[in-house]
Amino acid sequence: MWPDCSLIDLLGIEHPIVQAPMAGPSTPELAAAVSNAGGLGSLAFAMSTPEQMRANLARVRATTNKAYNVNFFCHHPPAPDAAAEARWRARLAPYAGELGLDANAPVPSANRTPFDAAACDLIVEHRPRVVSFHFGLPNAALLARVRQAGCIVLSSATTVAEARWLEAHGADAIIAQGFEAGGHRGMFLTENLAAQVGTMALVPQVVDAVKVPVIAAGGIGDARGIVAALALGASGAQLGTAYLFTPEAKVSNLHRAALEAGHDDQTSLTNVFTGRPARGLINRAVREVGPISPDAPQFPLAASAMGPLRAAAEAKGSGDFTPLWSGQAMTLGRKIGAGELTQKLAAETLVRLGRK
Amino acid sequence: MWPDCSLIDLLGIEHPIVQAPMAGPSTPELAAAVSNAGGLGSLAFAMSTPEQMRANLARVRATTNKAYNVNFFCHHPPAPDAAAEARWRARLAPYAGELGLDANAPVPSANRTPFDAAACDLIVEHRPRVVSFHFGLPNAALLARVRQAGCIVLSSATTVAEARWLEAHGADAIIAQGFEAGGHRGMFLTENLAAQVGTMALVPQVVDAVKVPVIAAGGIGDARGIVAALALGASGAQLGTAYLFTPEAKVSNLHRAALEAGHDDQTSLTNVFTGRPARGLINRAVREVGPISPDAPQFPLAASAMGPLRAAAEAKGSGDFTPLWSGQAMTLGRKIGAGELTQKLAAETLVRLGRK
Repeated sequence: MWPDCSLIDLLGIEHPIVQAPMAGPSTPELAAAVSNAGGLGSLAFAMSTPEQMRANLARVRATTNKAYNVNFFCHHPPAPDAAAEARWRARLAPYAGELGLDANAPVPSANRTPFDAAACDLIVEHRPRVVSFHFGLPNAALLARVRQAGCIVLSSATTVAEARWLEAHGADAIIAQGFEAGGHRGMFLTENLAAQVGTMALVPQVVDAVKVPVIAAGGIGDARGIVAALALGASGAQLGTAYLFTPEAKVSNLHRAALEAGHDDQTSLTNVFTGRPARGLINRAVREVGPISPDAPQFPLAASAMGPLRAAAEAKGSGDFTPLWSGQAMTLGRKIGAGELTQKLAAETLVRLGRK
Repeated sequence: MWPDCSLIDLLGIEHPIVQAPMAGPSTPELAAAVSNAGGLGSLAFAMSTPEQMRANLARVRATTNKAYNVNFFCHHPPAPDAAAEARWRARLAPYAGELGLDANAPVPSANRTPFDAAACDLIVEHRPRVVSFHFGLPNAALLARVRQAGCIVLSSATTVAEARWLEAHGADAIIAQGFEAGGHRGMFLTENLAAQVGTMALVPQVVDAVKVPVIAAGGIGDARGIVAALALGASGAQLGTAYLFTPEAKVSNLHRAALEAGHDDQTSLTNVFTGRPARGLINRAVREVGPISPDAPQFPLAASAMGPLRAAAEAKGSGDFTPLWSGQAMTLGRKIGAGELTQKLAAETLVRLGRK
């Protein structure tokens, strides 16, 4: 049915459509709906405690017996840096004042933890068909345990050099994450944001450079984009923003309204919410503090001092300090169920390919 | 033969492949070779005197009777600003010193002139099938003369809003110029470089927003990219960097060597060469002065003080101060003739489309 079966055979799925793991919006219901429809649903555990991970794994296993993906970040947590933290709080102090907050009050620490032994234990116990990583790969010992558990390993590349590195270090397939993609750039061998590569240019050059299947990501919002991704040589496509419009995604009303009102030219890469560049709709925090602030402390520490601003603004109905993650093709979103969306994307793609 | 004939019928060409106009590299030989092979060859007159324009029009008419395109910039020339000029010369003074130049010597003025009455007279006289513009459209009176001469009018959009504006103001087809594209961004309604849109996201959203045919540009380097562009809803594809590898393109040995050695992640948008953001390979000037310098005077004035640095460095075999324009898919380039390249791109695209 599909012209290129390398990815669907590797992952044990019916359609080469991957729901992007999105820490926050991803739910077991979303992952199960996508997997039950023949795509690859994804859980995203970058902001989850081991207890939350265990509960979500149980829920997804109770609702699908299909292949699913579990995603982790594998950044290196920064050393505490009181001076950087103070600089950031000073930068945000005027906003704290405006919102009636004490700029010097303690803030909760940012809760993004990298893949570690405890998470690995859960993976070995639950053996999901697919485990994906962002920001490279975990250390060799952890990765070996994941592979020994029989899991297929994916990771994101934002450049050809990163794709080559991932293939050499054991990735079974590579997500070529173009510049258009929403959320965090997976970049891990480069910090040069100005040289990040768009999907149209990245995918064929990654395909030419590696032997493993390539999944195109970034700016793909409908069947046209999936056909384009396959034309570029990818064996599958990953969509994130398109799934934010589904009821199964845990997206606040504020974020949902912003996505629905969004336009192609209203996002940018910003480091103001976490310290790492990620694409979201341009709101006040991005516009005034960023989009790239030299004062933002290292990932994920920037999230700490931003948290109280976000909470206070949201309590007043404002998304001024909320990360409104979005890719650049948000106007292609459809407000239908995640399972129906997956089935429609597959069917519409096959029609365009003349395969159905 | 082609699934969508709206563009090829409009332009009177055989294959929906446009050779991007590139002021500098474009030659009558390049344009004629592409047009004779069934694509749309382009002359680029942004840096040409009327005498050069006349000579090049005569040469292209002598070598093809097919449709060709003549491209102009239509920026608004800035008022002279001695303070800005002094700031820029001060910024570049250390390099002038290093190269043994007098940082205060007079420099030739930057020679990029917008489309004007004299250029319009030439268009009315020569009546090329297609006239394209960059940075919007010329004023209504000039545009009316171009249209009355029977020319089809194209212009570039970098956002959906720009595409809508161009359609409303008389463009017959729109080039959706994605972030990946080499050379100058065509942006004219926005200055927000951080919100520029990648080809994969831009094209379908522009297609959804306008009724005129859309030409996809940016990151398209081979038949895979052309198939992808058509899948996204474009009626044609424009390629620039791919044609820089052909012998008909006037590209210095320095620039050619840089293109051949280039990688996907080695370009960025920079304003240091002209004052307007344009994509090129990252060299010393981009890295040290830019990529975006607040000191660069308005387009095209930044080119003036950079000129002597470029000339002096090139005389020593260095491309440190040379604009090495390139899109992000330069590794897809093939060193074959422009006519053969056009024919191969068309044939390979049709095979992939199952049309041949």
